[in-house]
Amino acid sequence: MIIGFIGFGKVSRNLAELIDSDDVEFITSIEGRSDSTIENIDESKIEVLPTFKEVAAKSDILISATSPKAAADVAKAYGKFASGIYLDLNNISLETTLEIDKHVENLVDGAIIGKIDSDNPTLYISGKSASKLLFLDEFLDVKVISEKAGDVAVLKLLRSSYTKTLTALLIESFEIAQKHDLENEFFEIVSLTEGDDFKEKSLSRITNTLKNPKRKAEELEEIISCFDDGELIMVKSALEKLNRY
Amino acid sequence: MIIGFIGFGKVSRNLAELIDSDDVEFITSIEGRSDSTIENIDESKIEVLPTFKEVAAKSDILISATSPKAAADVAKAYGKFASGIYLDLNNISLETTLEIDKHVENLVDGAIIGKIDSDNPTLYISGKSASKLLFLDEFLDVKVISEKAGDVAVLKLLRSSYTKTLTALLIESFEIAQKHDLENEFFEIVSLTEGDDFKEKSLSRITNTLKNPKRKAEELEEIISCFDDGELIMVKSALEKLNRY
Repeated sequence: MIIGFIGFGKVSRNLAELIDSDDVEFITSIEGRSDSTIENIDESKIEVLPTFKEVAAKSDILISATSPKAAADVAKAYGKFASGIYLDLNNISLETTLEIDKHVENLVDGAIIGKIDSDNPTLYISGKSASKLLFLDEFLDVKVISEKAGDVAVLKLLRSSYTKTLTALLIESFEIAQKHDLENEFFEIVSLTEGDDFKEKSLSRITNTLKNPKRKAEELEEIISCFDDGELIMVKSALEKLNRY
Repeated sequence: MIIGFIGFGKVSRNLAELIDSDDVEFITSIEGRSDSTIENIDESKIEVLPTFKEVAAKSDILISATSPKAAADVAKAYGKFASGIYLDLNNISLETTLEIDKHVENLVDGAIIGKIDSDNPTLYISGKSASKLLFLDEFLDVKVISEKAGDVAVLKLLRSSYTKTLTALLIESFEIAQKHDLENEFFEIVSLTEGDDFKEKSLSRITNTLKNPKRKAEELEEIISCFDDGELIMVKSALEKLNRY
């Protein structure tokens, strides 16, 4: 079994380490790659081919893990040479996933939830050949979501939509509590149902969002453009909330 | 020390049991009370006076635990006879609390969070004499919020506002997930950050709210009328959401 990588950053490097099997051979190319990527490749002692075209053609599983911006171009350039499964692990939108699906014969849409270098990263995958990747379960948690490429992208959006809207609610609740000088008491009383880590988790979400409300607002706009059917009241009001900062 | 009760339902009966001390004497009256309350009183072997006026006058701590609707009338009728602390434990709004404060010399605003007959009910109190009730900490958790009667009512509202708005967000997220046939996957992926009980807790909140969306919407209206300053975007959209059911 040959696994090829397009892009050899943190995700690819860690996957190559996690998938520690004599039956798997890893390949990639340094064609047009940055110095830091080439350094990563050198350290990993992975086989290097002259071109990504050859990597695509030789791989049973071709993993694209470059950047959200480059993901569609990579698929357009090399998808047609991939003879096996094309696993996209870039953090891309549903729209980009569906665009990539047009250029790739056998797309599996994937996302790693949890840090890749943590104890328990989980690989979520969807696509008609997703279940063929279940052998990876030996090396990291693998969850097949469905046979439909794009479902993992939907799930990522749903999760992000939930968390960002919740944070907008936390900001609003915190502001009301602050006006009454009851911030700590608010966290304490809500902890009774939401768990002991409610205060710490909430403050970190609030801080993190208010550090860059514009970027969070953009992400909410993407969610709204993907999901909206006139019923997205809460998500839209979270966008309105974030746009005030 | 004499503790008097106006209203002898579940809360009062359980308090009388919890506060198990030789130094405390309990009194109440059956004046105008229902048969089931009289039965409660008989079972508790609490001293019965002919009138609530006498109960109010004799009590060091007079506890009003009747019903949200009756709370203000009880305060108007008996508050003026209370010589000690008047502890209101009815689940009342901030508005009603402030109304009661006008008729009562020494109001402490209280709420029991957690079930009164559970292992660990917590009594939240605020008011200028709240700290005088700290001796109750021997019998149940007591938290003094502030010296301002009304702060516990604000805190209850904040908590209720947070939970109801969160539930509106859960309903919306669930609906999007359902459209993509990804409900279980949504709960599972969000559990990774929100805790293992996320699915169970969320479904129970959704079901409970959709069973009676009109009542929940009314509660949100009360919150908005108390807190609104043009910044309550999330809570207002939760109201809009619930009004669609």
